[in-house]
Amino acid sequence: MPTYTPPLRDMQFVLHEVFKVTDEFKAMPAHAEVDADTINAVLEEAGKFAAGVAFPLNISGDTEGCTLNQQTHEVTTPKGFKEAYAQYVEGGWAALSCDTAYGGQGLPFVMNQCLYEMLNSANQAWTMYPGLSHGAYEALHAHGTDEQKKLYLPKLTSGEWTGTMCLTEPHCGTDLGLLRTKAEPQADGTYKITGNKIFISAGEHNFTSNIVHLVLARLPDAPKGSKGISLFVVPKFKVNADGSLGERNPIYCTGLEHKMGIHGNATAQIAIDGAIGTLVGEPNKGLAAMFVMMNAARLGVGNQSLGLTEVAFQNALAYAKDRIQMRSLSGTKAKDKEADPIIVHPDVRKMLLTAKAYAEGARALQIFCTLLLDKAHSHPDEKVRKDSDELVALLTPIVKAFITDNGHIATNACMQVFGGHGFIKEWGMEQFVRDNRINMIYEGTNTVQSLDLLGRKVLGNNGATLKKFGKLVGQLVAEEGVNEKMAEFINPIAYLGDQMTKFTTEIGFRGFQNPDEVGAAAVDYLRVAGHLVFGYMFARMAQVALREIAAGNTDPFYQAKLQTARFYFAKLFPEVHTLMRTARAGSKVLMDTDAALA
Amino acid sequence: MPTYTPPLRDMQFVLHEVFKVTDEFKAMPAHAEVDADTINAVLEEAGKFAAGVAFPLNISGDTEGCTLNQQTHEVTTPKGFKEAYAQYVEGGWAALSCDTAYGGQGLPFVMNQCLYEMLNSANQAWTMYPGLSHGAYEALHAHGTDEQKKLYLPKLTSGEWTGTMCLTEPHCGTDLGLLRTKAEPQADGTYKITGNKIFISAGEHNFTSNIVHLVLARLPDAPKGSKGISLFVVPKFKVNADGSLGERNPIYCTGLEHKMGIHGNATAQIAIDGAIGTLVGEPNKGLAAMFVMMNAARLGVGNQSLGLTEVAFQNALAYAKDRIQMRSLSGTKAKDKEADPIIVHPDVRKMLLTAKAYAEGARALQIFCTLLLDKAHSHPDEKVRKDSDELVALLTPIVKAFITDNGHIATNACMQVFGGHGFIKEWGMEQFVRDNRINMIYEGTNTVQSLDLLGRKVLGNNGATLKKFGKLVGQLVAEEGVNEKMAEFINPIAYLGDQMTKFTTEIGFRGFQNPDEVGAAAVDYLRVAGHLVFGYMFARMAQVALREIAAGNTDPFYQAKLQTARFYFAKLFPEVHTLMRTARAGSKVLMDTDAALA
Repeated sequence: MPTYTPPLRDMQFVLHEVFKVTDEFKAMPAHAEVDADTINAVLEEAGKFAAGVAFPLNISGDTEGCTLNQQTHEVTTPKGFKEAYAQYVEGGWAALSCDTAYGGQGLPFVMNQCLYEMLNSANQAWTMYPGLSHGAYEALHAHGTDEQKKLYLPKLTSGEWTGTMCLTEPHCGTDLGLLRTKAEPQADGTYKITGNKIFISAGEHNFTSNIVHLVLARLPDAPKGSKGISLFVVPKFKVNADGSLGERNPIYCTGLEHKMGIHGNATAQIAIDGAIGTLVGEPNKGLAAMFVMMNAARLGVGNQSLGLTEVAFQNALAYAKDRIQMRSLSGTKAKDKEADPIIVHPDVRKMLLTAKAYAEGARALQIFCTLLLDKAHSHPDEKVRKDSDELVALLTPIVKAFITDNGHIATNACMQVFGGHGFIKEWGMEQFVRDNRINMIYEGTNTVQSLDLLGRKVLGNNGATLKKFGKLVGQLVAEEGVNEKMAEFINPIAYLGDQMTKFTTEIGFRGFQNPDEVGAAAVDYLRVAGHLVFGYMFARMAQVALREIAAGNTDPFYQAKLQTARFYFAKLFPEVHTLMRTARAGSKVLMDTDAALA
Repeated sequence: MPTYTPPLRDMQFVLHEVFKVTDEFKAMPAHAEVDADTINAVLEEAGKFAAGVAFPLNISGDTEGCTLNQQTHEVTTPKGFKEAYAQYVEGGWAALSCDTAYGGQGLPFVMNQCLYEMLNSANQAWTMYPGLSHGAYEALHAHGTDEQKKLYLPKLTSGEWTGTMCLTEPHCGTDLGLLRTKAEPQADGTYKITGNKIFISAGEHNFTSNIVHLVLARLPDAPKGSKGISLFVVPKFKVNADGSLGERNPIYCTGLEHKMGIHGNATAQIAIDGAIGTLVGEPNKGLAAMFVMMNAARLGVGNQSLGLTEVAFQNALAYAKDRIQMRSLSGTKAKDKEADPIIVHPDVRKMLLTAKAYAEGARALQIFCTLLLDKAHSHPDEKVRKDSDELVALLTPIVKAFITDNGHIATNACMQVFGGHGFIKEWGMEQFVRDNRINMIYEGTNTVQSLDLLGRKVLGNNGATLKKFGKLVGQLVAEEGVNEKMAEFINPIAYLGDQMTKFTTEIGFRGFQNPDEVGAAAVDYLRVAGHLVFGYMFARMAQVALREIAAGNTDPFYQAKLQTARFYFAKLFPEVHTLMRTARAGSKVLMDTDAALA
């Protein structure tokens, strides 16, 4: 059976030593009082919940799955899931970074980020119930009317109710412009909604007395395509003006998907049969309102893979130290044993370090992004807010696609460390692989992310936002370029930062002549950008570690950071050399293939 | 629900047009009469069995799995599996390439190869029952006594009985030297065997009246480690001298593993409680005897991933043509539809072509290797036999590891084409991913394969065998180097062939100083070698296609071959640039990481 230890020290390193978050908070009136002790105490408690409550339900949740009663349309979640959620609500975790106006604790998003990293390590399927709910909270908080906020936000904040996002339909996933669900205005200002949704995560369950569905639908006079989509809030039980529950709304779970992974989460088919809802935001602007939720969800999906990468690494490391098999190529290491622990083998170490590096790079990037969200939300200086918002928009597709693809590589590598035992369910490793696999797909496939990055976020403004990130890299290079000890960490990102400009210009020029060139290069481009960003994160972490060591700190933690960074630059980062070649190989070999793809 | 069409034309292209197998067979007395019509007719029938009988049981077999009756130790396989096996035996498929002396049809191994490619596409879990059995046949054929052959081979040939290979124990997989199962000599010349085995594929089932277990065990006086292992044949039911069944031997299935994939195959825990067996081959030389089976199995595992890559490709291609979603970046393609079929998107084509190229490269390599096996087995010229044997030994770890890793990439890419639907069991795509995942692990993990390649097969004889393969590449380069139309296919392999020599020398030199350098480079090295081999296969296929086109053949099949080869060299082959860098990055960043891996 797998184990999980919350990586508190690693989080604290990134929070306090690398990004010095409390210094940043001091500039934000809402968070000026949040000090390191508070952060650490909260994360410690969060870790106890994740490891002690959510994690023990991970394998059993996978084995049991969810069941639908076709008569009542009610869903039973795996044993213990409901009780764990009650504990979560009781502990106030749902409210952690919610608005104090609605009963939230108002703590910075970075703390929610760390909470969720641990919850995802512990149990991705379970964590999606509160996770989706928090997305619904954010969309209503940003776009709801005062009445909607009053009615729904306190209950979503406390966790008394949960929320969902109902986007996908059988014939449309990526292309929401095709959606058919209809909303008919009623005399009382509400809307009667009819349609079929699929793939609704946490779409039905037995945790709470009500579920607040956010539903995309079309008004009768709506323009075709994505400009004719509106957002509605459609509760499972109608809500009276005093907040009490009214009659059952005809929005029913009619089926649950049989999936590769995240079995503990109810992926619902939802039939909406004239359910009554109210409009969120402006008519036909539903997609924009939903994107508040979607952007948060994309960062959240990266965080899911960070969680799985970390827990997979921890277990593979433990196994590699424990399992004895063969002797070291460079001579017997464990003379007292029949064979050496497999951690002596170079390729086993490579698999472990791959996961470790991808976890540490992801953790730094996720916290970096969430701190930007805190600034975008709470900083008094408008320019800081705007810059932060732009930077996080640039980084969002990288977080989503790069971290989830890396999660695929890492969880598979960790499973491989176990040999045949990795394939056996009881060891828990193959579940990490299966659960991670959806992260590369939902909330916009990783191909969609790459087009968002290259097409919209980079070429869409002539590389202006990318240059802002490049400036950060440039500052670090300028700052540390003369430091001989930093050369091994600085040179690669200086090189790639330089290459990136030429590379982007070249792809942009080609794309101007033929847009399929953008589509052909985008996935490779995103991974190159991902390595530039991770390279920057590792250089920042190495900088801190080197300073501590220079100051006489002998904690091996800092040596570990250097070793992981060295490994990253030597064995993972060089992927960019192939990626820039294959991106430059262009679209012709893909598009001139009518015979091959006949 | 997925579909499967046997790729007969593709097989025939490789068999008849690329490798001209019937010309080769003419030189082998045993196969001199095997003509193209015979081959094609047999493969057509084989395809009907695979697509019509085995394939419809693939998803249901995954859903049902196998069940063990703990009282009787009998295993029930999924519905239809037993009947399909009866049809297989009835059709004579088990006997296809078996020795005529024992009732086999004596056809070349390449035909068995193509049969098994199709069976693996259709149903890997089911195919492992006859597949393992064939391995047992081969080991007994090579090392059994006359009596053992007389007793077991006719029944294994016909398929009336099946066989297994019982190697792994709970504490030893890769490191068979640690195995503990004991064999005590009895007065009558038999052995009483006691021990526990795990991970025994097709280890128990309800297909046949008897199961012939080949078991590795230690004699009482055996030396420690891998030099003290002997091989025994231990039937489920003892066999009387007249071939009739005697009493039940105490070799019992005591548990079935719960696995990520291949649910339809019974992965058995086997308790051997004083079962009676006879020695196969010489005492303490069991590992060598078992390696007959293992080498065949390794080629067979590559073939499993070839099968899965092909069927995953076929279904992803069909879906990509059918599913409409978004418009092409370069302008609307399907004006009569609400959106374009997703095959217009460059990255969808890239995912499809990745699978197609990896299937076609693998098919060529598998047939190339099996033809070498036919030569090694049936060619009258001893030098040809020896050269063929050496070359297939070199290529075996590449087939096993490169093709299964590519299968992982390809099945995941094909699943990704389906978006969210790829994650849903009913579509069948995620099963291909799960089933393929074991191929990277069993019969020696892919890391073990890489050490076998670099350490034993390449550096072990100072690159002599590698040079033999290099000679084939050199011949093709010399032959086509002046052909302008071949340049795009020849230049990359000429370049890599050249690099490979330096690369090998460099790693060899480092490994001489520090053996961990070999362990650190091996996995990257194997993939580089894999691309050299695949590059050679694609150049050979392109050569044939170009000649046909030059001769006026307008069949788009040949354009398709060129397009796939172009895609391969532009988008997949360039991986070597990163791999040679990361291999050269050495072992230090892996081994000097005690703090990071504390």
